[in-house]
This record gives sequence, structure tokens and C-alpha cells, in this order.
Amino acid sequence: MNHTGVHDFVLAVDFGGTKIAIATADLAGHVLEQSRLETRALDGAEQILTRTLAEARVLIARTEAQSKGQCVSIGIASPGIVRDDGIALSPNIPGWEHVRLRFTMRTALGVATIVAANDVKAAALAEVRWGALQNANPAVFLSLGTGIASALIVDGRVLTGAHGASGEIGYNLRGVSDIYGAAHGRAPLEEVVGGRFIGERGSKLLGEQLSAAELFSHADVRVHSFVEETLTELATHVANLAILIDPARIAIGGGLMNSSSLILDAISSRLAYAVPFPPELVPAHFLSDSSLYGAIALALTEWVDGKWK
Amino acid sequence: MNHTGVHDFVLAVDFGGTKIAIATADLAGHVLEQSRLETRALDGAEQILTRTLAEARVLIARTEAQSKGQCVSIGIASPGIVRDDGIALSPNIPGWEHVRLRFTMRTALGVATIVAANDVKAAALAEVRWGALQNANPAVFLSLGTGIASALIVDGRVLTGAHGASGEIGYNLRGVSDIYGAAHGRAPLEEVVGGRFIGERGSKLLGEQLSAAELFSHADVRVHSFVEETLTELATHVANLAILIDPARIAIGGGLMNSSSLILDAISSRLAYAVPFPPELVPAHFLSDSSLYGAIALALTEWVDGKWK
Repeated sequence: MNHTGVHDFVLAVDFGGTKIAIATADLAGHVLEQSRLETRALDGAEQILTRTLAEARVLIARTEAQSKGQCVSIGIASPGIVRDDGIALSPNIPGWEHVRLRFTMRTALGVATIVAANDVKAAALAEVRWGALQNANPAVFLSLGTGIASALIVDGRVLTGAHGASGEIGYNLRGVSDIYGAAHGRAPLEEVVGGRFIGERGSKLLGEQLSAAELFSHADVRVHSFVEETLTELATHVANLAILIDPARIAIGGGLMNSSSLILDAISSRLAYAVPFPPELVPAHFLSDSSLYGAIALALTEWVDGKWK
Repeated sequence: MNHTGVHDFVLAVDFGGTKIAIATADLAGHVLEQSRLETRALDGAEQILTRTLAEARVLIARTEAQSKGQCVSIGIASPGIVRDDGIALSPNIPGWEHVRLRFTMRTALGVATIVAANDVKAAALAEVRWGALQNANPAVFLSLGTGIASALIVDGRVLTGAHGASGEIGYNLRGVSDIYGAAHGRAPLEEVVGGRFIGERGSKLLGEQLSAAELFSHADVRVHSFVEETLTELATHVANLAILIDPARIAIGGGLMNSSSLILDAISSRLAYAVPFPPELVPAHFLSDSSLYGAIALALTEWVDGKWK
């Protein structure tokens, strides 16, 4: 990275359920300065914004000093459906639903260009721009973490849907007997294959507290069956998604990809026989900080081929 | 319709599994002359093309005489994945996989502009242009007939997918226990909710030969349960499709829509609780001849706002 001349830069913020990642990046997407805060979600939205803005000012000042450039754009990734007047479908941070992210950041930091979007859709954008989904159309990004979600990319753009809610496959019904769903505050598929729920169910099975990652590498034969059943359920839904979209490639990211070979094997074997034209299946390029790189991609949305559109 | 002046027109052909619909239409999409042939699928591809071309010439000549214009474009709808060198995934017409539809029609009829596509995707296009999916983005067309399939419309265009196979939800796995699929020549969801299979299974249940339509309106209580279970299975998959795409509207067409209220009720009740933002659910505008109107829409692909692009 070249810091010898005047270089403008962008700020990226990824509001996660447990941590907030903040970074500045050059216009090629390389991180310049980076910081991480605890979210303390239960303490509410106000303190999250206050601490984030303070830290953002520190990073911006430090990057200005280094680069002699200025912050020209801000990208923000958040769980939920990010709208100008609040954030829907993000129940884990009290008060987050009323936060006006773009307005707040613009007012506090004095930067005109601010792009905010859902964290998984943002991560998909980073894969399209710099990662595992370059030159694939259509493409699918699958995020397997505490929760699960996907993003569909058509002609290089993430499909938002009519209400910004496309790709939220955690709400999928698992079968005819699922008579509860989104309207009842439930997410039937996520309650079986989301990382948090895998941990909870596996821990019950063994009578000890284990994470999804620990269960995936556990020697107990009961755990093997449980993990296999869980991944088969997940794979069934990914196969149906691939049948519907007919993507060229699917990239999988998120915390569960620490056990990537188990997950890739389970999904690829279903794709192979269920989908008329099975897509490529690859690990995402950004396995950690994927939404932070997504926020950088958001900030650089209008920066194409070396100039601002 | 105004036939007093010189009016160019288009030819549309819909190759169906049991009938071939052929029509000429004016540039507003109104049918001028129309004809219908038996497909006689088992007699093979050759005789289908020969008879279709002969009939097309008759309709073109008749329309030329009436309109004093000429045939400027041809649209063709066919089951399967229509490529220039053949038609994939259309096993019901022997030899159809090797038919070069556009080349054959262009050579025989001397018309330069020929657009050929999958019949369900074509029907979706007609709904977008003149029917129930105008001004809906994204939108979904669902075709429930002998077989089942869908088409996704993003920004007014039908998503084809990386291999032309998007929307083929008849291949969907119904659950973790479905260990057969497309690679084994199977279509798990269609084998339960496709019209032909509903007829076969219902007929077995009652020990008499009945169609899906007859079963839908049958008084027997066993048939009621069977129909309800079948539609619940279908509705579960439509709900998951809607969760993934977040469409503004879903339009349902195809032969099963003769029992439209049963189908719409079953699907809308699942959409209502399973999808975070339930889409509008409406019957398609073109409930008969939908793929023929689709072929007209294909022929008029480049005719926009009263002029050729």
C-alpha cells in the first residue's frame, strides 16, 4: 500500500450482534486502520452509536494524518433490513429498529456519501467485488453463523427484494408440519441449522455446554448423527435454492465454516444429485470480517474502474 | 383492431406436450389468426416441425392478405431449455433434444428475427407485459399444470439462470429423506404436486380414473384430505420460494388453476405466516394459451414503446 502521496479513503462499520468492527480502507479496498468494540447489545442502541462514532473519529484522524487524504465515503453493514428511518427484522439490539443509521453517521462525521445495507448482502458484495463470487452470474452467497441467511447476486448486483428481505432463508419452513413461522416470531430453518441452535441442541444431547464448532469436531457417535442430520437439513434447503436460481456458483461464509469440509461435503453431495445443473460450491474468500469487507464494498459502490461514477 | 392500413405482424408458436398453438398477432399483441394442432409427441420431432411449418405458412399468408403487412418476427415457446443447438430437459418428445428451433424456423419461413425460450418463462413474460405481473418487482410466475415450474422476474426481465434452468422447482427435494433427484431422472416435488401425478395418485385412492381437476371438486372425504395434503406440500415450497425472493407479487397460472380458489387459499394461508413480508398472490391473467401469449411476447421482445429497439 502506498501512503507516500495524498490518498482519499473510506470508512467502514460493521455492526454485529457481539462486536462492532470499524476500519478505514483505501480506494482499492485495503484496510488501513482497524478497530473492534464490544457491541453490548442489551445496553441498547444509543451507547453503540456513541462509542462507534468516537472510535470512527479516532480512525479517521489517524488515517488522515497518515494518508494526507480525507474520508470520502462511509459504508455501514448491520443485521436486519436497513432503511433510512430504522432497521427492521433485527430484534437482538433493543432500540435498533428506530436508529437512522445514515442520518446519524452523516450528521456526526460530516461525510456526504453513506451507503448502508444488510450485513449478509454487504458480505456478498465483497465476494462479488474481490472474493469468491467474481465472474459468476447468477451467484449465491450463503452465510452460516449464529443465524443463517443468503444473498442472491444477479448481473453483479445483490437482489434486495420488494421489501429488502430477500435471501432470509432462516425463515424457511422445513416441511408441511411447520405451522409456525415469521408471523409468530419463529425462524423454522434457523432454529435447526443456525449455529446458536446447533450449539443448544447438541449441548442438551450431551449434557454439557458446547458450541457448534465443538460439536462439529466431537468424537461422540450420537453427536456425529446429530451433526449429519442437521447438515442434511441445511443441504436440502440449499439444493432447493440452487434449483430455483440455477446459479453458476455458491460461496459459503460465516462462522460455521470453521468446519468447512463437513459443510461443503454435505451440501455438495445434495447439489450433485438434486440440481439439474449443479453449481460450483466454494468457501467464501472473506471467512472472517466478511461484513466489514462488505461495508468497505458498500462505501466503494460508486467507485468503479478507478473513478467515482 | 385496425386492419385498414398496412400493418406488420408477428408469428407465435407454442409447442406443448399435447397440442401446438400457432397464431399471428399485431404489434400490440392481439391475436389475428390462430390455429391448433395435435402434437402427437410420440411420433417424434420431425412430423411436429413439418406440420407446424405448413400451418404457419397458411396463417402468415392469410394474415398478409388481411393486413397488407408482413411477418417481421417469430416467437417460439417450448418445454425444456431452448438452446440454438437443441432443447435440454424436455424428455416427452423423442428427438426434440436435437431440434434447432430457431435455425429451422428461420430457414423455412425466411424471417430474420426469431426468439425462442422455455414455455413457462415465456408465459411469465406475457404476464409482465400485459397481464398480472405488470409493475411488480421482483415478481414470480408459478405454472401449475401437468408439471410445475416457476419463473422469476427481476427488473422486468426473466431470470434465466447460469444454464437456462432457473425456476424448475418440480425438481425440489421435499425433505431430508428425498435421496433421489434430477440426476436419477426424478422430480420429487412434481411427483407429488404436478397435475398428472395428482390424478394418478387420487385415482389409485378411489379405484377409478380421475383427473386432478375432478379430484379437486370431488365430494369423497378421503379425496378432501388427499387434496389438502397435496396443496399444503405445494404451499410450503411456494412459501420458501417467496422467503428467498421477497417478491412484490406472485401470479399463478396453468391448468390446475381451474380450481383456483382451493389453490390460492392453500398458498396464501402459508404465505401469510411464513414469509416476513407476504407478497400479493393473484391468478395469472392468461389462464389459457399462456405460453402462446408468451411466444407473442417473445416475438415482440425488441418492440418497445411503439418502435423496434
